[in-house]
Amino acid sequence: MHYHAQHAPFGAFASFTLGLPGARGGFGQSLPGPADQDVYIGFRRVAADGAPATPWQLLPYYQRPQVAAVAAFTGENTRSASHEPQPIGLEKIERRLGWASDTWRHEGFSFCLFSPFGPTAEPDTMADDVARRAFAPVVCAEIGFDNTHGAEDIELLFGIGHAEHPLRPLEDSAADLAGFALGHAHGFAARPADVHSRIQGLDMFNPPARDHRGLHLLGQEAALVFRVRAGEARRLPLALGFYQAGDVTTSLRSRYYYTKFFDDLEAVLRHGLAEHAFYSETSEARDAELATSGLDVDQRWLIAQATHSYLGSSQLMLHRGRALWIVNEGEYRMINTFDLTVDHLFLELAWHPWAVANTLDLFARRYRYTDTIQRPGDHAVLRGGVSFTHDMGVMNQFTPPGRSSYECERLHGCFSHMTMEQLLNWICCAATYVEKTGDHEWLRGHRRLLLACAESLRRRDDPRAARRTGILKWDSHRCGADGGEITTYDSLDVSLGQARNNLYIAVKAYAAWALLERAFAALEEPAESTSARAAADLAARAIAAKFEADTGLFPAVFEAGNRSRILPAVEGLVFPLYLGFADELRARHPDLFAKLSTHITKALQPGVCLDADSGAWKISSTSRNTWFSKIALAQHVVRKLFPEALNEKARAADAVHAKMQQSEPLGRYAMVDQVDSSTGVSLGSRYYPRIVTACLWLDR
Amino acid sequence: MHYHAQHAPFGAFASFTLGLPGARGGFGQSLPGPADQDVYIGFRRVAADGAPATPWQLLPYYQRPQVAAVAAFTGENTRSASHEPQPIGLEKIERRLGWASDTWRHEGFSFCLFSPFGPTAEPDTMADDVARRAFAPVVCAEIGFDNTHGAEDIELLFGIGHAEHPLRPLEDSAADLAGFALGHAHGFAARPADVHSRIQGLDMFNPPARDHRGLHLLGQEAALVFRVRAGEARRLPLALGFYQAGDVTTSLRSRYYYTKFFDDLEAVLRHGLAEHAFYSETSEARDAELATSGLDVDQRWLIAQATHSYLGSSQLMLHRGRALWIVNEGEYRMINTFDLTVDHLFLELAWHPWAVANTLDLFARRYRYTDTIQRPGDHAVLRGGVSFTHDMGVMNQFTPPGRSSYECERLHGCFSHMTMEQLLNWICCAATYVEKTGDHEWLRGHRRLLLACAESLRRRDDPRAARRTGILKWDSHRCGADGGEITTYDSLDVSLGQARNNLYIAVKAYAAWALLERAFAALEEPAESTSARAAADLAARAIAAKFEADTGLFPAVFEAGNRSRILPAVEGLVFPLYLGFADELRARHPDLFAKLSTHITKALQPGVCLDADSGAWKISSTSRNTWFSKIALAQHVVRKLFPEALNEKARAADAVHAKMQQSEPLGRYAMVDQVDSSTGVSLGSRYYPRIVTACLWLDR
Repeated sequence: MHYHAQHAPFGAFASFTLGLPGARGGFGQSLPGPADQDVYIGFRRVAADGAPATPWQLLPYYQRPQVAAVAAFTGENTRSASHEPQPIGLEKIERRLGWASDTWRHEGFSFCLFSPFGPTAEPDTMADDVARRAFAPVVCAEIGFDNTHGAEDIELLFGIGHAEHPLRPLEDSAADLAGFALGHAHGFAARPADVHSRIQGLDMFNPPARDHRGLHLLGQEAALVFRVRAGEARRLPLALGFYQAGDVTTSLRSRYYYTKFFDDLEAVLRHGLAEHAFYSETSEARDAELATSGLDVDQRWLIAQATHSYLGSSQLMLHRGRALWIVNEGEYRMINTFDLTVDHLFLELAWHPWAVANTLDLFARRYRYTDTIQRPGDHAVLRGGVSFTHDMGVMNQFTPPGRSSYECERLHGCFSHMTMEQLLNWICCAATYVEKTGDHEWLRGHRRLLLACAESLRRRDDPRAARRTGILKWDSHRCGADGGEITTYDSLDVSLGQARNNLYIAVKAYAAWALLERAFAALEEPAESTSARAAADLAARAIAAKFEADTGLFPAVFEAGNRSRILPAVEGLVFPLYLGFADELRARHPDLFAKLSTHITKALQPGVCLDADSGAWKISSTSRNTWFSKIALAQHVVRKLFPEALNEKARAADAVHAKMQQSEPLGRYAMVDQVDSSTGVSLGSRYYPRIVTACLWLDR
Repeated sequence: MHYHAQHAPFGAFASFTLGLPGARGGFGQSLPGPADQDVYIGFRRVAADGAPATPWQLLPYYQRPQVAAVAAFTGENTRSASHEPQPIGLEKIERRLGWASDTWRHEGFSFCLFSPFGPTAEPDTMADDVARRAFAPVVCAEIGFDNTHGAEDIELLFGIGHAEHPLRPLEDSAADLAGFALGHAHGFAARPADVHSRIQGLDMFNPPARDHRGLHLLGQEAALVFRVRAGEARRLPLALGFYQAGDVTTSLRSRYYYTKFFDDLEAVLRHGLAEHAFYSETSEARDAELATSGLDVDQRWLIAQATHSYLGSSQLMLHRGRALWIVNEGEYRMINTFDLTVDHLFLELAWHPWAVANTLDLFARRYRYTDTIQRPGDHAVLRGGVSFTHDMGVMNQFTPPGRSSYECERLHGCFSHMTMEQLLNWICCAATYVEKTGDHEWLRGHRRLLLACAESLRRRDDPRAARRTGILKWDSHRCGADGGEITTYDSLDVSLGQARNNLYIAVKAYAAWALLERAFAALEEPAESTSARAAADLAARAIAAKFEADTGLFPAVFEAGNRSRILPAVEGLVFPLYLGFADELRARHPDLFAKLSTHITKALQPGVCLDADSGAWKISSTSRNTWFSKIALAQHVVRKLFPEALNEKARAADAVHAKMQQSEPLGRYAMVDQVDSSTGVSLGSRYYPRIVTACLWLDR
């Protein structure tokens, strides 16, 4: 229960974040973490004469200002304990996070936030009314009370408090909306007929001043109040909206796609109220799908929370009249980090497959480069091949063509290049997209690039065909003569940090060749397909040969006597598994699969890749920094392909993982990827979208 | 030397705030106080081989991040003492704040910020190239070193560090600009040919990573480096720009006027560099005017700092194709607070008189109302008359017609109505504007309103002509039956808080009648002019009759035996003084003037209206909350009309006032209006524009 969740519209890079007791949240636009608003949601009983019979009882999602804002004007602090709201005890609240909703209940009170998503077609092909619904920057909510058996009337309250920004009553710009907004940026609204009264003040619970409407327009705290009479049960719709006009991104300029359909915040809120039934029903449909998935309660919660966070990082833009898809990298806000794209792939193929093609196209068009390559202890710098940047920029600032915001020179760790990794990612994403969607036109459009990718992959084994071993071992010269490539696991120890001679990369390359074999067949390039098949066979033999007969495990790095053990040994198999040809590969390479089975069985032991203290899965035996996105992916592959490796402790870990994310400190950041597997301390990658790899579990 | 100054373009509601040692500042858009950027400005010596010979020596206007941003990625803090810059000792820095500049010197190093202003015509009538220059949202700067006699090369550095937002190199969007920006919002630029190198990193002084350009695009710290060879002296131009596109205000929607001329931030920065000579020369002209004004060093500093803060609150907008003028109320950010407008009047009439008419027109069109009136202990509610709201909204959110964000009901103090005050303000501003500018067409356009104002003023003495005494004493019924009007001095004690039977209001009303007499004469309304003259005579007699023969002083409030003493007794005389007919009034009402002279002479004594501890002027004998804007105004009136009242201690106070504003805590907020006269503690009204009343001192 100690966790924030991002309640986010699709593609608005915004969220209404709520749920961590004693903490602030609320409306956040493009933030690296929760916003800092007090959120006031709750109820009180009122006597027959209309006077309050109890104090406001509120969900505990506020701190209250340290000093009432009134003191800034008058020098006096008018805060009075008798007017203060009372937080509802956490133990009394029933909270349920659905796949597309979040619901709180206490006695007859209920509050629900909806963040629906659904299948979408390529945005530029959608009918306007369908696109309006899909891309409106609005989160719907419902506040209610079942007062059927109550003897007193109930008042319901929904409001927010900003640190230093006065709000404005929406009625001043839109007669059909009751609610409050902050400038043009965000606000909340209800239907005027539903609203009993509204509050705005420097101290909302004890306003020092009220104007002719009972408001105070200097107030940075404001709320709507609804009335539920004794004997009634009511559920009242609310719309929470965002709006950002004009060019938002730089270099490659774009504005929000929703600006095609909505002129301002008022239009968004009006739409949210009008379409409340559509949004709540869509949410309920998603919730039901997850609820009936057959997964257990912890697995369902992890999927639900991960999907919420993914939506908060999603951003659909309009560039020169065409859709431009971005997923931001959580707290780091890098644009379309490619090693996240490859993990978001499965969720996106299920719901918005056009997003995958959109991103791959931009990588192909603007963020592709051709390098030279090198290897340690060898002065030769040879022609390499095509690859792609780590990302496309950061925080709405696109980088120049062919360059990322992350990658630097002359490094062996964090911020080095990920040339092999991103080459593999383009291949894996492209081939998986095509095979899943059947979009062969797109594949034909990228025929030359895919051929170049295969050639680039071969040359990173060795530029000289005769010397190829089936393992990637040439680094990009972009690293500089004294640098070396890294993998997506940039903050781990050497077990996963180094790309060259890396088990994780080797198996992923094996999978990439298997994907290329099929893609080239679809392209009617039989020679290339045969060649890719041979490369896969070579890789399978090469990897199998690295197996340590004595330990029954693979080393993480095929260099310098490394003895780290890693679960991403099987990560690359997710693509054949997803596309349904993993068993075919197993039949072709039984030795490799048998050794991987033994490896995983030995790895999934306490003190190896199960944390001896917590029981959490660990991606590496030699690092306590573990990444939930990659754990979820490994769990899926192991459950499906190597179920024999799952002992009782390994099976029980979902509860451990869910508990960590539901507690402080992880819960503060609405899904954290990098975690200390022993302590549950957050090590980075907060407010993160990548954990939607857990959605693979739905593929039963 | 312990003070921030706002370096602000005209009308951009933005400033580059700098100057408080150990504190952050930098680019701020529409903020209630300084922004939170580390600002890095300084130099180092470099050896013949180009290696640093000394650490960076920087102006002390930064804090450095508590934890280097690199730690967010890697978990490691790479901060190294040997790479840290060294702040230049404050005692070694010569800082000079000019009217439109701020200059720092240390050894051969110099840095200067220009915030020029000049006379402008009504914006909609200006030629585009003139308007571009006048309204560009840019602050020019110059960094230099006189290395004529130096043996080593010098490197100069200008940069900023954000808390959490990566910057972007301008070269990626504009080949003719070197520098860095934050999104589309703000940035700094130099001419590429001037720049020796540039730095960007997570830790600028010890970057953990550099890309092919030597930058790291994830870096939230960035700087430009210039080189001055041994034997050279160079001064290098910089442009600091702001940009905000689209609708900025709500209800009454408007965008920045400069968006007519500039499409984006890059265009602003390009303009700033191209027009650097124009801006620096205009600044130097203003500086010279102040320097040769004959005022002493403290007076000149107070004027310069006040003007800087005024510009930071200024905002020129475009509404339906026409100019819309706003001055924001400092930290409170209320729009065109009328009791500030009346104090900005004199500066605005000197430089941009159209702004006065623009604001008065909007008050007349949208923020005028007609009320009923009441008096305590009397159930009668009678027809009142026309008046105007306290403000037009807050923080870019316009209030509905006829309503302010500030004024509430049923109060006797802060947040009550200021109906008399704002009626007087419209009359005083309008009449002064017309008489100063000779804009009789404007006057004729407002003939009916001015007549209504006179009638409203009369009725607030008493609705029944026979009962009029010359003192305003009927409150607006907008206060509610149990409320009472206040004055602009809302946070003071009763000496200035209550409008009814108030000495300050009474003298201001006397002045208003004198102004109306002349305005009606200009309108060729002889009967009205005569009637206004009679009202002034009645007021003069009524006020004089309140003089206490025993004490030689006026009471602040003509009720309940009040014995507070206030300097704003003479505030209203500023208008006749400014327009040159104060001596004519003195000749007409010698008794009143003589008594005011005695009052001021007795008030300007330690323990009365000179603070016994500090020597500061105090607006009221019974409150230590004093307002520098009003002190400056009172000083002007006393020096010109009642010089005989100035004893040695009263004369010496400018140094006390300047010292307070130049020290913590006031200096933190770049000019504070409300101050504890004994301790120099800030009591409110920070980052405030109003103190430009000090510009009256230039009227010699």
